Amino acid sequence: MATVKLIEYGAASPEVRAVYDDIMATRKTDWVNNFWKALANHPPTLKRTWESVKEVMGTGALAPLIKEMVYLAVSVTNGCEYCIRSHTAGARKAGMTDAMLGELMAVVGMANETNRLANGYQVEVDPPFMTVPD
Amino acid sequence: MATVKLIEYGAASPEVRAVYDDIMATRKTDWVNNFWKALANHPPTLKRTWESVKEVMGTGALAPLIKEMVYLAVSVTNGCEYCIRSHTAGARKAGMTDAMLGELMAVVGMANETNRLANGYQVEVDPPFMTVPD
Amino acid sequence: MATVKLIEYGAASPEVRAVYDDIMATRKTDWVNNFWKALANHPPTLKRTWESVKEVMGTGALAPLIKEMVYLAVSVTNGCEYCIRSHTAGARKAGMTDAMLGELMAVVGMANETNRLANGYQVEVDPPFMTVPD
Amino acid sequence: MATVKLIEYGAASPEVRAVYDDIMATRKTDWVNNFWKALANHPPTLKRTWESVKEVMGTGALAPLIKEMVYLAVSVTNGCEYCIRSHTAGARKAGMTDAMLGELMAVVGMANETNRLANGYQVEVDPPFMTVPD
Amino acid sequence: MATVKLIEYGAASPEVRAVYDDIMATRKTDWVNNFWKALANHPPTLKRTWESVKEVMGTGALAPLIKEMVYLAVSVTNGCEYCIRSHTAGARKAGMTDAMLGELMAVVGMANETNRLANGYQVEVDPPFMTVPD
Amino acid sequence: MATVKLIEYGAASPEVRAVYDDIMATRKTDWVNNFWKALANHPPTLKRTWESVKEVMGTGALAPLIKEMVYLAVSVTNGCEYCIRSHTAGARKAGMTDAMLGELMAVVGMANETNRLANGYQVEVDPPFMTVPD
Repeated sequence: MATVKLIEYGAASPEVRAVYDDIMATRKTDWVNNFWKALANHPPTLKRTWESVKEVMGTGALAPLIKEMVYLAVSVTNGCEYCIRSHTAGARKAGMTDAMLGELMAVVGMANETNRLANGYQVEVDPPFMTVPD
Repeated sequence: MATVKLIEYGAASPEVRAVYDDIMATRKTDWVNNFWKALANHPPTLKRTWESVKEVMGTGALAPLIKEMVYLAVSVTNGCEYCIRSHTAGARKAGMTDAMLGELMAVVGMANETNRLANGYQVEVDPPFMTVPD
Repeated sequence: MATVKLIEYGAASPEVRAVYDDIMATRKTDWVNNFWKALANHPPTLKRTWESVKEVMGTGALAPLIKEMVYLAVSVTNGCEYCIRSHTAGARKAGMTDAMLGELMAVVGMANETNRLANGYQVEVDPPFMTVPD
Repeated sequence: MATVKLIEYGAASPEVRAVYDDIMATRKTDWVNNFWKALANHPPTLKRTWESVKEVMGTGALAPLIKEMVYLAVSVTNGCEYCIRSHTAGARKAGMTDAMLGELMAVVGMANETNRLANGYQVEVDPPFMTVPD
Repeated sequence: MATVKLIEYGAASPEVRAVYDDIMATRKTDWVNNFWKALANHPPTLKRTWESVKEVMGTGALAPLIKEMVYLAVSVTNGCEYCIRSHTAGARKAGMTDAMLGELMAVVGMANETNRLANGYQVEVDPPFMTVPD
Repeated sequence: MATVKLIEYGAASPEVRAVYDDIMATRKTDWVNNFWKALANHPPTLKRTWESVKEVMGTGALAPLIKEMVYLAVSVTNGCEYCIRSHTAGARKAGMTDAMLGELMAVVGMANETNRLANGYQVEVDPPFMTVPD
């Protein structure tokens, strides 16, 4: 249960409804999830976060499926339950198969392990990794 | 400077050299980076970590480039300097362009932001995200 | 459900009861929350933690409300459910309005995002930020 | 040293210069720090991040000084060197005294400690903390 | 509820059953916990993770009880509910008393606190701590 | 370089010197490390932190060497450079051999990996792990 009220469409101000409408139109769904309903208590944050997510997650040099899987990888690393569940669903909807999920989790697990080994031994960075890009 | 000695090839035991040889053969390089030289102080960990990385990062349902970018995303989330630098280099070597890097970092940043917003408001998980897969 | 028993007032030793009494007197409440009841299994930790919290959270150069909001910001960053809920309540009790909560969460979210961007690009620190204070 | 080039004003596109100009005008400074110069490699991220920071950190229900200290608290929790140094400077510029810094760090330390204690014992949330706000 | 199906022994492939059998034989139990049943959806990860855990957690320079308590300390720091509960049970089974648990948690709490204080003030490392081991 | 001045013994107030003396007497050394010199800018925090560390790290149900290794494990997980270096030194001084360090790091790495796997798949806790202790 959230620490703030979830603002349903029917109880939302015109400003909030405008964002809800855009979410549903962009994602081609007929419902808005609880995350947005919680953010709606602070309309500037709702608006800014949605605009940011829309910009960041669209097609670009990286396909949406890749972006969804990266989002899931970060959520798993941070241990956010809501995010893990919603982004597992989002990634599956974007095309992630069971095999992809299994490999993604394996990479996330290994990265979290070797991050600590490298940090734990305070390994100095090899010069080839310090190259300044042109 | 590492908290343990970096084991150079010349000073390595046959067991350690065997792993070094496999790293260089697999990665098609003629040098071994400091991370492995630090792990070499505990040969079982060197061997197990290399075998794991080799298995996890190979081609599969996800292409190596995707895996490298996920590894970088996790390293950025965790803030490990060695890992960020070595995996930025690794991802570039696997084909990551500047545009991909820019979009990847944007996703990592957004995910770390919304993870805290969802957690911070203790948003309850929507039923559609609780579906048991078949 | 905790991994240790919650020690109720009635079952507590005199040493533990003394801490419970001080908590209730200081916070002007007639109950002790589960966090303290769990810590009570290790009386030195209960005592030390309460004394520390009492010292750190009192009025000083920063008002208690500011301190409560900072405590909440850290708890949100770390994703501790018990802490998020108890400190959201504590901050509200100290005077945090809905508008303040909305702005606080927005700052916490942005900070978690830009922390990863700065770290992810390994941005070097500008000299003006390296000034030694007098 | 950053993993991307720092884009100096003189080498920047008109789009990037526009953001640099707004940063300097808003912050009343005559220089742009390295964080923005690194983000400038991906202009959409530079623009979006600056617009977000400008919106989130302005005066509102919480004064800018409070927001700067919260930003510092999160950066300390996450361990980002660039962020800790730049935001310590930013908070001092906004009015944070040495006494405030000392108290802020004490709160951040305690919160990181009790977050682990509460999580570690899996303490169940007390009903009064589960109240749904009106 | 997991985001993947839990693979029960009866529904498992011979490859997965072989791992289940080894887990039960090594741990002298007649059941396999949910963690392994979830990993079983990606047999290479199940196999690799079990082999790694078996190697890392066995008797060595550090006794199994010490290793179990360290595993718990990391799980508490990261806030993983499943891990905290399963490893509290595992450590108790290996011989951890209530007094040991209380002291362990106290150390974990303090370490998480002083880690932020040291990082927060960007304390420079004393030369004696930079000694290269022979 | 720290963001606050390091308070040397010669420049310290009697209150701070008293703490420095106790640190040196307890640790049987003739110098105080930079961490304490930075905390000394806020005497209440210096005093409280030292008293806490002294109480928590002494001999008890767990030997000091075990506590030092747990402290190092947490510091490695969190990635605090100062802490990793100072506690690697502290653990070695308390008796940690190279073999112990290698095994400790292996456990820390595995735990950080499996924490993410368990969290990532949102594995439900097995009933035997939910037992209420007597």
